[in-house]
Amino acid sequence: MLKGIPSILSPELLKVLMEMGHGDEIVIADGNFPAASHARRLVPGYGHGVCDFLRAILDLFPLDTYVDAPVLLMDPVEGDDKNPQIWKEFERAVQATNGDKVSFEKLERHQFYERSKEAYAVLATSEHVPYANIILKKGVLDQ
Amino acid sequence: MLKGIPSILSPELLKVLMEMGHGDEIVIADGNFPAASHARRLVPGYGHGVCDFLRAILDLFPLDTYVDAPVLLMDPVEGDDKNPQIWKEFERAVQATNGDKVSFEKLERHQFYERSKEAYAVLATSEHVPYANIILKKGVLDQ
Amino acid sequence: MLKGIPSILSPELLKVLMEMGHGDEIVIADGNFPAASHARRLVPGYGHGVCDFLRAILDLFPLDTYVDAPVLLMDPVEGDDKNPQIWKEFERAVQATNGDKVSFEKLERHQFYERSKEAYAVLATSEHVPYANIILKKGVLDQ
Amino acid sequence: MLKGIPSILSPELLKVLMEMGHGDEIVIADGNFPAASHARRLVPGYGHGVCDFLRAILDLFPLDTYVDAPVLLMDPVEGDDKNPQIWKEFERAVQATNGDKVSFEKLERHQFYERSKEAYAVLATSEHVPYANIILKKGVLDQ
Amino acid sequence: MLKGIPSILSPELLKVLMEMGHGDEIVIADGNFPAASHARRLVPGYGHGVCDFLRAILDLFPLDTYVDAPVLLMDPVEGDDKNPQIWKEFERAVQATNGDKVSFEKLERHQFYERSKEAYAVLATSEHVPYANIILKKGVLDQ
Amino acid sequence: MLKGIPSILSPELLKVLMEMGHGDEIVIADGNFPAASHARRLVPGYGHGVCDFLRAILDLFPLDTYVDAPVLLMDPVEGDDKNPQIWKEFERAVQATNGDKVSFEKLERHQFYERSKEAYAVLATSEHVPYANIILKKGVLDQ
Amino acid sequence: MLKGIPSILSPELLKVLMEMGHGDEIVIADGNFPAASHARRLVPGYGHGVCDFLRAILDLFPLDTYVDAPVLLMDPVEGDDKNPQIWKEFERAVQATNGDKVSFEKLERHQFYERSKEAYAVLATSEHVPYANIILKKGVLDQ
Amino acid sequence: MLKGIPSILSPELLKVLMEMGHGDEIVIADGNFPAASHARRLVPGYGHGVCDFLRAILDLFPLDTYVDAPVLLMDPVEGDDKNPQIWKEFERAVQATNGDKVSFEKLERHQFYERSKEAYAVLATSEHVPYANIILKKGVLDQ
Amino acid sequence: MLKGIPSILSPELLKVLMEMGHGDEIVIADGNFPAASHARRLVPGYGHGVCDFLRAILDLFPLDTYVDAPVLLMDPVEGDDKNPQIWKEFERAVQATNGDKVSFEKLERHQFYERSKEAYAVLATSEHVPYANIILKKGVLDQ
Amino acid sequence: MLKGIPSILSPELLKVLMEMGHGDEIVIADGNFPAASHARRLVPGYGHGVCDFLRAILDLFPLDTYVDAPVLLMDPVEGDDKNPQIWKEFERAVQATNGDKVSFEKLERHQFYERSKEAYAVLATSEHVPYANIILKKGVLDQ
Repeated sequence: MLKGIPSILSPELLKVLMEMGHGDEIVIADGNFPAASHARRLVPGYGHGVCDFLRAILDLFPLDTYVDAPVLLMDPVEGDDKNPQIWKEFERAVQATNGDKVSFEKLERHQFYERSKEAYAVLATSEHVPYANIILKKGVLDQ
Repeated sequence: MLKGIPSILSPELLKVLMEMGHGDEIVIADGNFPAASHARRLVPGYGHGVCDFLRAILDLFPLDTYVDAPVLLMDPVEGDDKNPQIWKEFERAVQATNGDKVSFEKLERHQFYERSKEAYAVLATSEHVPYANIILKKGVLDQ
Repeated sequence: MLKGIPSILSPELLKVLMEMGHGDEIVIADGNFPAASHARRLVPGYGHGVCDFLRAILDLFPLDTYVDAPVLLMDPVEGDDKNPQIWKEFERAVQATNGDKVSFEKLERHQFYERSKEAYAVLATSEHVPYANIILKKGVLDQ
Repeated sequence: MLKGIPSILSPELLKVLMEMGHGDEIVIADGNFPAASHARRLVPGYGHGVCDFLRAILDLFPLDTYVDAPVLLMDPVEGDDKNPQIWKEFERAVQATNGDKVSFEKLERHQFYERSKEAYAVLATSEHVPYANIILKKGVLDQ
Repeated sequence: MLKGIPSILSPELLKVLMEMGHGDEIVIADGNFPAASHARRLVPGYGHGVCDFLRAILDLFPLDTYVDAPVLLMDPVEGDDKNPQIWKEFERAVQATNGDKVSFEKLERHQFYERSKEAYAVLATSEHVPYANIILKKGVLDQ
Repeated sequence: MLKGIPSILSPELLKVLMEMGHGDEIVIADGNFPAASHARRLVPGYGHGVCDFLRAILDLFPLDTYVDAPVLLMDPVEGDDKNPQIWKEFERAVQATNGDKVSFEKLERHQFYERSKEAYAVLATSEHVPYANIILKKGVLDQ
Repeated sequence: MLKGIPSILSPELLKVLMEMGHGDEIVIADGNFPAASHARRLVPGYGHGVCDFLRAILDLFPLDTYVDAPVLLMDPVEGDDKNPQIWKEFERAVQATNGDKVSFEKLERHQFYERSKEAYAVLATSEHVPYANIILKKGVLDQ
Repeated sequence: MLKGIPSILSPELLKVLMEMGHGDEIVIADGNFPAASHARRLVPGYGHGVCDFLRAILDLFPLDTYVDAPVLLMDPVEGDDKNPQIWKEFERAVQATNGDKVSFEKLERHQFYERSKEAYAVLATSEHVPYANIILKKGVLDQ
Repeated sequence: MLKGIPSILSPELLKVLMEMGHGDEIVIADGNFPAASHARRLVPGYGHGVCDFLRAILDLFPLDTYVDAPVLLMDPVEGDDKNPQIWKEFERAVQATNGDKVSFEKLERHQFYERSKEAYAVLATSEHVPYANIILKKGVLDQ
Repeated sequence: MLKGIPSILSPELLKVLMEMGHGDEIVIADGNFPAASHARRLVPGYGHGVCDFLRAILDLFPLDTYVDAPVLLMDPVEGDDKNPQIWKEFERAVQATNGDKVSFEKLERHQFYERSKEAYAVLATSEHVPYANIILKKGVLDQ
């Protein structure tokens, strides 16, 4: 534990977030996501939901302003609820740190999987809400 | 995720608990415990408190009945509260699964560290309550 | 050993089953299957038949409901018995846990091999009955 | 699978048995034995009892004739049954392959653990009978 | 050493033979074969000829009966002896264990190399006879 | 790079600082220190002086309040300047974050080396000032 | 530290520079560059700017005279300053060691990323100036 | 050191030469060759020239007689000396061991690089003469 | 294979022999020797007897002339033949290369084991003759 | 290759020399020295004599001025020449870089071996002159 760093961010997770650069992506995966089979780097976040991670990460992590949509969601398959409740919380978390100019893009389920294979890391949570996967694309810091 | 297995138990943690045998010990370490430097096997449990793990583990894990005290606590150093509030919760968790015949033993801080070095695994939590470390000694199953 | 977990599930096998997510597949391979050459992760289950594993796994493992057939069999080559007796047991095991709405699909032998190469794991048994290989595709848990 | 080699002997187990030489020891451990924490080489034999392994191993494995007792058992702790039923089966298995001149020695529980740490390998079974651990010391072949 | 297992079969070689399944291939390579550069798994058999290995392996190893020719030879390059003497011994070894219904196929030198890259293992001998390379394709055991 | 984290703290260094717990020590070593031969974990900080690291680390890192002196210096050998100028800067850095109640202890050169071998990590800088090595002992956070 | 070798060149960096041969490339990456995801070999240079490295490297490292432009820059994206101030310093550093006959080439941002993936190494700095990435192609020494 | 083996052949180099078989190639690379980036196996030969290695290797190593040219050189780029002096020494070394019937082939610089990537090993020397790279293709021994 | 190097010497064995220096020891172990459990480096020589290795090794390997006995044998246990026939062959092999001034020393069985643990390598043969283990201590070459 | 760095210093050797700090030792070992068995880090320098390395190393490497003798030699065993000719060259090399105030110490052969085990690295040369081993203890640089 260090002063001012929230304890939900493990040493390994913080290291991964720091190593990422402009354009690199991280997947915050829900509990049903095939994380271990799709991750280049699998970061364990078991027992937690997605939102706690999302808020803690966005406090430190700049979103990419060079693309139309630096946030990606998994588009629900035909027959499932097309507008999951939890997405509201995702939006609130993004607005709280980045204002309301950030666009979200939806990816079809298997496209989302393919995209995850190219991501820098997949953070495996135990979020039980369906379609609670989210990809964040890292932006630039001036410092 | 699997049916009936609580999501706070990660794949790695469950594997470790299964591999342990009669007399092997696991440390559930609080957020200030020097886990990485004392662990033979470090199991990440960051962001969680100790009690959630304790309850989930004791539902699966038999305590050793061949020793006087299969549960070990870290005795507070002179000057600190000698009877931390959280120990009550520890007792309740043990009673809920093992009845009230289980004895607890207290180990002086540095003895606790030495004991942890010999443990099969150390589970690193982010518990912020002081002296919230606990060692469980595994018992025998008949099945 | 842990309370309530059948002993045929080794620590490694249970870890693998937990790590798998929606759409990931596991092959339970018979004793003649070229498991070591086709497996991304080879899980040893030597000395056992397929059915004992199948029953123990299906008690914990949700089948995929987003595909037509979450269970795959190896279609016997021309000249061999096209309807192996052991498939009856496979069906009973699936029905016992998932009811009778689950469809099975047959894959030609070499297609089955190619599919196995993409599976998350291959569990190598010593089942001596021919064509006793089975692939299970993991589904979603709500919890 | 190979002709004439019983399927309970996994590739890894047979390799280990072949690598062992005069005086090397293997522990066939019951399901409660702390195998992973005491083994130099842990060989998985989960889901099986000890006797099936014992019989298959003794068909291939010469016992040491240079020591008084090439077979070691774990002496039950005061309060437990001092003469476990399963030991009869152990004796029958040894007699079937080596005649009745082979002596068994009993080791106190913690001495047995220490001895296991020095063994060439520990074979982890799921035997549920208590005190069903056995150490075999390898002898010499003329061929 | 184990009872009844010929000493030319090393622990590693026997493990490899056991791990192989239906359709997997092993190359027994002569001393000039580029074994280390073409092998997925290189098994050392230096100092021996090919025939001793061939006989010992065929006593344990079933040949594939689902293909026309489960035995492959390297076709001599134009200018070399098209019918090496040692092939007679190869045939005798195959006949001794599998009768005379087994067909051999010849592969052009570079095709043989490509095929070897896909084999489960290459056993590197020091056979000095030219064109003394042989590939065996594993079959099925009922047991 | 992440918001609010100084760029002198590399991903690896921050991970190491987070992994450390109560009583663990880190050595910030000058350019002549035998870091690679004495470090359990060697963290590269080449090209930098010690003070920049000291200030950035102390902003995040609690010092141990359970010991008399959580800061250790290398006592100059007889004949060298017994009171290096750079120690003043060390004191200022410690005071700025921890007030003036923190005691420093001096260790004889070879004792300092032995102590460094037990430290959780050694951060190798290129500080050219002699005797500019410093050990920090981590304390407890309530959070 | 060695006589005459500037301390900003770490042991690992110098080894990498020595291992490189004619035509191999090194990327000196600014703090926002996705270094860890694009590097074959990631060399840590955190906390430093690009220019200090550039000067120290060019004192030792010959530039390729067999290509038109042995130095590559990342062409700013439309909307950003097309002529970053820091490039002046880059030119001065190159002129100081190689005279003014060395040409620079600009690569579009994603082409620069692809090129970096093929480079021998990426040196990750914390340079905060945008578009301060530079690729150097190694030339030939007569010695 | 062993009797009769020249000391310029390191243990690793001799092992590599022995492991090579018919058709495998080794690159003896000059000091400017990008050896570390193009080698499957990099064998260090720093501080030596190419000729000493060439002579020592050819005393042990048969050249391939199944191809037109078992020796390959790097064709100088337009503008450089097309007939480097050192090639004379190469020819003398080859003639001394293999007579004068051995043909040499020249490969364009980048073709030579591609060929080196497929070679069994690259031996990195410090030869300062330009275009002093040579590839040897191994032949067959009868013994 | 290389010119003039006997094929019983594998690439790995020759590398080990070359790496050894003055005073280093190699054990040529018979088939019953506990080689895998006592070896720092286990070199496979399965299927061969000891004498073929002994002769091939002594042609290359100088014996230590700084000790009384550079050759060590395992003294037969009371009850076994105290003067094994094969020792004659050992003596002949040593005389053929080193003349008759070389002394042999006998070590009690368990002392021989302890000595083997300190040896540079153990060469595991399949020699079936009892007490056919031999240790060679390497000497000095002038070259 | 880099400008101004002699080619006898390999990338690995230079890295090792840079990593060493005050008091660390390097052994430059002759061809008969048991380098591989005594080295923590074995640096290959085969084919070269000791003096070329000594001169190149001392140009970069400061000797320790805090001990009586920063240079150690192996004292010849009774019966060998007690004052090897090559020591003169060693002295000249040391004087050329460090003046004539540097003392040499002699260590008995087995003490020299023990000391080498603690050294940071052993550089294995092929020097054929006996007793041509030398240990250098690193000193301090001010820069």
